[in-house]
Amino acid sequence: MSLDAVLARLDADLEAATARLFDLLRIPSISTDPAHKPDVRRAAEWLRDDLAAIGFAAELHDTPGHPMVVGQIDGPGPHLLFYGHYDVQPVDPLSLWDRDPFDPELQDTPRGKVIRARGAADDKGQLMTFLEACRAIKAETGRLPCKITVFFEGEEESGSPSLVPYLKERGDPLKADLALICDTGLFAEGVPAIVTQLRGLLGEEMTITGPRIDLHSGMYGGMAMNPIRVLTQILGGLHDAQGRVQVPGFYDGVEDISADLRAQWQGLGFDAGGFLGDVGLAQPAGETGRMPLEMLWSRPTGEINGIWGGYTGAGFKTVLPAQASAKVSFRLVAGQDPLNLRAAFRAWVEAQLPADCTIAWTDHGASPASRMDISHPAFCIARAALSQEWPGEAAFIGGGGSIPVAGYFKDILGMDSLLAGFGKDDDAIHSPNEKYDLDSFHRGMRAWARILTGIAAA
Amino acid sequence: MSLDAVLARLDADLEAATARLFDLLRIPSISTDPAHKPDVRRAAEWLRDDLAAIGFAAELHDTPGHPMVVGQIDGPGPHLLFYGHYDVQPVDPLSLWDRDPFDPELQDTPRGKVIRARGAADDKGQLMTFLEACRAIKAETGRLPCKITVFFEGEEESGSPSLVPYLKERGDPLKADLALICDTGLFAEGVPAIVTQLRGLLGEEMTITGPRIDLHSGMYGGMAMNPIRVLTQILGGLHDAQGRVQVPGFYDGVEDISADLRAQWQGLGFDAGGFLGDVGLAQPAGETGRMPLEMLWSRPTGEINGIWGGYTGAGFKTVLPAQASAKVSFRLVAGQDPLNLRAAFRAWVEAQLPADCTIAWTDHGASPASRMDISHPAFCIARAALSQEWPGEAAFIGGGGSIPVAGYFKDILGMDSLLAGFGKDDDAIHSPNEKYDLDSFHRGMRAWARILTGIAAA
Repeated sequence: MSLDAVLARLDADLEAATARLFDLLRIPSISTDPAHKPDVRRAAEWLRDDLAAIGFAAELHDTPGHPMVVGQIDGPGPHLLFYGHYDVQPVDPLSLWDRDPFDPELQDTPRGKVIRARGAADDKGQLMTFLEACRAIKAETGRLPCKITVFFEGEEESGSPSLVPYLKERGDPLKADLALICDTGLFAEGVPAIVTQLRGLLGEEMTITGPRIDLHSGMYGGMAMNPIRVLTQILGGLHDAQGRVQVPGFYDGVEDISADLRAQWQGLGFDAGGFLGDVGLAQPAGETGRMPLEMLWSRPTGEINGIWGGYTGAGFKTVLPAQASAKVSFRLVAGQDPLNLRAAFRAWVEAQLPADCTIAWTDHGASPASRMDISHPAFCIARAALSQEWPGEAAFIGGGGSIPVAGYFKDILGMDSLLAGFGKDDDAIHSPNEKYDLDSFHRGMRAWARILTGIAAA
Repeated sequence: MSLDAVLARLDADLEAATARLFDLLRIPSISTDPAHKPDVRRAAEWLRDDLAAIGFAAELHDTPGHPMVVGQIDGPGPHLLFYGHYDVQPVDPLSLWDRDPFDPELQDTPRGKVIRARGAADDKGQLMTFLEACRAIKAETGRLPCKITVFFEGEEESGSPSLVPYLKERGDPLKADLALICDTGLFAEGVPAIVTQLRGLLGEEMTITGPRIDLHSGMYGGMAMNPIRVLTQILGGLHDAQGRVQVPGFYDGVEDISADLRAQWQGLGFDAGGFLGDVGLAQPAGETGRMPLEMLWSRPTGEINGIWGGYTGAGFKTVLPAQASAKVSFRLVAGQDPLNLRAAFRAWVEAQLPADCTIAWTDHGASPASRMDISHPAFCIARAALSQEWPGEAAFIGGGGSIPVAGYFKDILGMDSLLAGFGKDDDAIHSPNEKYDLDSFHRGMRAWARILTGIAAA
C-alpha cells in the first residue's frame, strides 16, 4: 500500500526535511519591516523554487505589498487549496532571545526535540509539513492524489492588506472544493484538533457628546449632563446579571451546539481553572449555565475594549467633560448577522441617550462567524488521520477568535476551510525563542499524507 | 452723619483711588512663575505701605512661597478679618490681549467704564475696594469703627501651598468675629449677592484589576472577567433614574433649604435655559423635582470626572484589559460628613466587585460643605448695604464649588466668613483682557463703608 511507503519515506527523510525547513527559517521575512522587504521576497522565491522542485507549476504574484506564492499540480482527486504564510513576526526584543532568531537549531529539551527559530511554528514549520507530504507522495507514487493549489501569503503578520484585493481580482484559480489551512494548534498535549467554527467580530466606537465644552463641576455640577455618566449607564447595562447581552435581538438565530459536539467538548477535559488561573482569574465570567468551552467557542459576547473621557492624568480635576468614548466589540457566532447587530446595537444605545446628548459612531469592521460544513467527508478523514498520528483522539473544536483568511475564502471564493495545525501552547509564537516541536513537524507531515490519500480515496 | 461724609469722600476721591489701583496693577505679581517672584514681593510691599499710609500696623510674613501681608488697626466695634489676594494669573497667550496686561487703562465701553488689566477683577480691584473704604473712613472720622485685621495672600492663583501651614502656625492674630472675603461676584447684572453656602468636595480614584495581564478577546472573550465591564456596571448604577446618588446613606443629614431661602432663590429669576444654553445644553440633568439653583447650590452630586481603561488609541484592539480606572467626585452640602461618605462609597463599590476583581483607591481630598450662620447680624447689614448700592436687592446665594480659604478659616480658626464681591461674569478673569467695571470698584468701596459702619453700630 502506497500510504505506508509514503509514511516510511517521510520518516526516513525527516533529517533532510528539517534541513529544508532550516533553509527557509534562515530568511528573515519580517513583513512589517520595510528593511526586510527583499528578505520577504527571497522567502517567496525559495518556496516557489521548492514547489517547482516537487513538481508544482509555481510562480510569484506581485501585489502592492509582498508577493503571493501560487503553485498548482494536477491529481485525480478533488481540488484542494492549501494556505499558509511565509512571513514572520518581528523579533524585538532581541535581547530576550537565547540565540539568533534566524539561525535555526535543533535543540534537546525535557519535552523532546524542538526547532528553535522565528517562524518555526508560525507558520513556516507548519506550511512545510504540507510540502513535505506532497514531496514524499510525489516521489513515492509519481503524482499527487488530488489536484492541489498551494497559496502562500507574505503579509499575514502585518494585517494582510493585499489579501482581499488579490482574492477578488485573481482568486478564481484558487477556487477549490475545500481549503486546508495550517496555522492553528493542537487542542492540548497529544490531542490534535480541527477548528470547525470560528466566532465573527463586530467592532464599534462611540463618542457621546454632552456640553459643547468641558465644564467645571463646581459651577455646573448637578445641573449639566455628564457624558461619562451617560456612557457608563448605557454600557453598564450591556449585560444582565446572567451575563447575557441586552441588545434586543442579539441572540436571534444563535443555536445551541449539537449534542454530539457537546459530548466531544465535554470529553476534552478542558481545565477552565488552569486556563483562567494562568492569567490570575478563577471564575468563568460568561453567561451563567454555559460550560466554559461554550463561552469561548459557541456563545456570542459583548466586550468593552476601551473607554475614556474626562481627566485621566495624575491628581484630580473636577471637570465635567464634553465627551466620553468607548470601543465595544461583539464576538459573533453562526446565525448572527453582523450588520443587523450593528444597527440593533446603535439603536439600543441611541434609544437611551438623553435629549442633550449626541453620539458619533466609528465602524471598526464586521465579520460573520464561520461554521464549517463538517458533513464534507474531508472532516471525517482528517479527524481519523490526526487520531492515528497523535495519542489522543482528534477533536472538532471551536475558535474564540477569527481567522480572517477562512472568512475571506468563504465570502469571496465560496469555499469552506478545514483548519488543522500542530502548534502547541508553549511554542512562543510572536515571542522570543519561538520553537516548533520536531514531533509536530514529523506527525504533521504524516497526517497530511494520510489526509490527502484519504480524500482522494473517498 | 459721618457715613454720608465717608460716601461723599469716596465719590470725590474715585479718580485718586483708581490711580492707586493702577499702581498695584502695574506690578506683574504672577505667583506661579518663579521669574516673577520679586514682582510678587513688590506687590506685597506696596500693600504693606498702603496699609501703613491708611494707619494700619502692617508687615510682611515670609513663607516658603510668597509673603503674607498682615495689617491691623483698632476700632471700637467687633473684630473683622478681611481677606483678599494680591497675586494674579499668568497672561498667556499674550497675543490675545489688546494691550499690555500690566499697563492698566480706564476704557469706555458700551456697558460703561472698565479698568482693563490682569488682576483688575481678580483680585486687586476687589481688595482695594475695602482699603479705599477704610482710607475714607479713617480720613473722615479719624479711626476705624471696628477692629480690623487685613490678610492678603500671594499664592491664591498657584494653589495656596503656604496658607494652611501659615494659619496653623501663625493664625491666632487672624481670629476675628467674622471674616470678610472679597473674591466673588454679583449674582447678575445689577444684583449683588452674598454667598452663604458652599459645597464641599470628596475626590476618589479607583482602579479595578481583573486578569493579571491584558488578554485577547478572541482567546478569552466570554470567559474572562473584563474590568471595564465591572467599572461601567458599578458606576452606571451611581445614580437612579431620578438622578439620586445610590450610595447608601448619601443623603443622610442633607436638609432642604428653608422656605425663606427658597423664596429668595426663586426670586432671583435664574435663567437655567440661558445658563445651559451657553454650553450647548438644554435640560437640567440633576435630581428630578429640584429647581436648578438647588441642583447647583444646595444638593449634593456624584460625578465621574475621568474614566479610562483598555485600548484608547486609533483603530481597534480586541483587548480585555487587566485594569480600568475612574476618578469620581462628590459635591457635598451641609450635613454630609466627607469621611463617612468616603467609607460608604468605597463599601458600596466593593460590595459589587466580583470575586475575581480587586480594587485600589487613591484619596483625592475631602472637604466638608460650609454653610454660614446667617443669623450673625453682619449678614443682614451687608445685605442691606449691597441693596442700597445696586439697583437689585442683594441675595443670599449658594456656591456650587468650594472657596478653600473659607473652609480653612472655619476649620483652623473657627471663624465664619461673609463672602461678598462685585465681579461680573464678563470680567474675563484668568483670561486675556481681564477687566473690572469702574462701577464695581466704586459701588464696592461704598458698600464696604456701609457694612463697616453698620456692623459697628449693631
